[in-house]
Amino acid sequence: GRQVSKGATVSVIEGDGIGIDVTRAALAVAGAALAREGAAPLTLQPVRAGAGYYSETGHDIEPGGEEKAGEADAIFLGAIGLPAIRHADGTEISPHLRLRDRYQLYAGVRPVKAYPNAPQRLADPRAAGIDLVIIRESTEGLFYSAAVHGRAEVIGSEEVRETLRISRKTTEKLHDFAFRFAARRAEKGRSGQLTCVDKANVFTSMAFFRQIFDEVANRYPDVPRGYNYVDAQALDLVRQPWAFDTLVMENMFGDILSDLAGGLVGGMGMAACGEIGDAIGLFQPAHGSAPDIMGQDKANPLAAILSGAMMLDYLADTRGHKGYAAAAARIEAAVESGFAANALRPMEFGGDMGTRAVTQVLLDTIG
Amino acid sequence: GRQVSKGATVSVIEGDGIGIDVTRAALAVAGAALAREGAAPLTLQPVRAGAGYYSETGHDIEPGGEEKAGEADAIFLGAIGLPAIRHADGTEISPHLRLRDRYQLYAGVRPVKAYPNAPQRLADPRAAGIDLVIIRESTEGLFYSAAVHGRAEVIGSEEVRETLRISRKTTEKLHDFAFRFAARRAEKGRSGQLTCVDKANVFTSMAFFRQIFDEVANRYPDVPRGYNYVDAQALDLVRQPWAFDTLVMENMFGDILSDLAGGLVGGMGMAACGEIGDAIGLFQPAHGSAPDIMGQDKANPLAAILSGAMMLDYLADTRGHKGYAAAAARIEAAVESGFAANALRPMEFGGDMGTRAVTQVLLDTIG
Ligand SMILES: CC(C)[C@H](C(=O)O)[C@@H](O)C(=O)O
Ligand SMILES: CC(C)[C@H](C(=O)O)[C@@H](O)C(=O)O
Repeated sequence: GRQVSKGATVSVIEGDGIGIDVTRAALAVAGAALAREGAAPLTLQPVRAGAGYYSETGHDIEPGGEEKAGEADAIFLGAIGLPAIRHADGTEISPHLRLRDRYQLYAGVRPVKAYPNAPQRLADPRAAGIDLVIIRESTEGLFYSAAVHGRAEVIGSEEVRETLRISRKTTEKLHDFAFRFAARRAEKGRSGQLTCVDKANVFTSMAFFRQIFDEVANRYPDVPRGYNYVDAQALDLVRQPWAFDTLVMENMFGDILSDLAGGLVGGMGMAACGEIGDAIGLFQPAHGSAPDIMGQDKANPLAAILSGAMMLDYLADTRGHKGYAAAAARIEAAVESGFAANALRPMEFGGDMGTRAVTQVLLDTIG
Repeated sequence: GRQVSKGATVSVIEGDGIGIDVTRAALAVAGAALAREGAAPLTLQPVRAGAGYYSETGHDIEPGGEEKAGEADAIFLGAIGLPAIRHADGTEISPHLRLRDRYQLYAGVRPVKAYPNAPQRLADPRAAGIDLVIIRESTEGLFYSAAVHGRAEVIGSEEVRETLRISRKTTEKLHDFAFRFAARRAEKGRSGQLTCVDKANVFTSMAFFRQIFDEVANRYPDVPRGYNYVDAQALDLVRQPWAFDTLVMENMFGDILSDLAGGLVGGMGMAACGEIGDAIGLFQPAHGSAPDIMGQDKANPLAAILSGAMMLDYLADTRGHKGYAAAAARIEAAVESGFAANALRPMEFGGDMGTRAVTQVLLDTIG
């Protein structure tokens, strides 16, 4: 029968460069998976933003665009930024950092998973078992001072100071999210150990971050926990990444370690990301806009496609949309089986498949 | 004939845990290499400091110890800190962070080199060619706010703020040091490319860091230069570390990336470090005090021994001591040939050799 219940609404910011290509791929695959489940389709609301838009209009997002983006159930974002288009101080156009702030998207979820036949950087065969998630706080930490917020203190041409902020309010929400997330991982058969990554040996703010972790941990006695300093964690990610399950950390640390971990299992073309706030989530591949290959059908759309699956999961969880969780699982299974059968061979990994070909494999599998 | 010229003086802070074991190994090897070259011996001045000293006396360094340490030509430090002994705010005992500050040890030099038969984490055979140096600014950046300096802003139990500081003065010296360092690498047959690692796309301070890099670069037109964002650099260190030669970056970034890079070629037991200031240098293995294996003859002393070689090189360069550069080269060659012959098999890498056995191999080679 015809689906009558209304689907979720999604604000779509295609952005710059390959952001445009991979967004279309992700939304096509999400649409196909929902249709296959007989679930209500997404209603898409485009929002213009990015460096290209800025160079045309002098604004990094359309008038009222920040507000408009938040009127949907979720936001999907392709990629933003063009190296040649910068602010006077040298920083890049970054309206999405304001979106993280405005919608308090404190929990940046970045899964890192080894797929069969995808590049494996580490020699140890246990690396085939890499399956971890980095939870990057995404509204404060050092990014409290990101140029787009105008909080850097510039002292003539002699000095610049930034402020790293750790607040109890955000950190409690972050750790609570992380413990619940790790508990769900345990239900799915993973170890579900949650590691607090910090630099509590040197910084008062980081000792504070760890102290709040311990306070919140008391509410989750069944979740195994661990601790690691950020420098030791960087080393452990090359030495024994298979030993970790869920890692929670400050914003700048998460930015660095999630790219590092992504590199272990291929590269940024697999790096999905969901940034979850109290009322809305923003989903985007964690890679950049790669303007050198834009519009050439070369970009690997899998990070975007997997981010789309995370979005459907989020919509099922928070908005109760029927069939959305099954559609998400279907996309993930299609990526898994596609790699296992060596049917997914993205150019990023030296394969013969461009954006469209990779997308088509998934559309065919999903049927 | 008998050596009559006076040798260099070195302040020795053995510190905590395995710091004591590896310091003795490093000084024994340095002494043997100097003797073999007929060079004047080091005069050692012990300075007590560390977490053990703190728990006995309530002070993290002996009275007047900071000043005393700086009266020598160089400082050698084993390792400092014991996890169980902390300040009230949870941070660890870190007098060496004050030494970095007091003596403006702005250039933290951390070589990362693949030795034959040492563990290799990466599958790609090109990883055998890893030979890069991270230059970590070591006095400001985020560490401007390290707890030991008392600059964190604690707002009740609600919030902690730290200050990241980038000053023109220190950054100019840092980049100048890095360009000269890269130029010397080129003379020794390496590419000598200098990469500025920052987050100039997001932070005003980092755009400033990059701007000063470009200003200083004008004085070194023959040094090839590159740029990378810190997150992309973390990824590149697992994807193609052999493509890099010298990397210069902010303090916290350097802390993280030097451990990561050290992990690629074995672990912290190989991580030598020299922290160079205008008037003095401090040399120490970059690893911790590992109290779990202290006094058990298990620690890998090679990071300390290679730090000792860096110290001799520094003393030759800045104090003109005869035979010191040759002694340094002799130690490095002994480590290289020891690994090549599989005669160096540290327990850290699953081998059968403790601290004393590794040290003895080098003493025997040096003769
Ligand atoms: C482009 C940049 C603003 C962004 C960040 O640092 O957050 C990116 O690196 C990411 O990881 O999403
Ligand atoms: C122990 C700590 C203070 C130190 C640092 O972060 O500088 C260590 O990690 C290092 O890299 O030397």
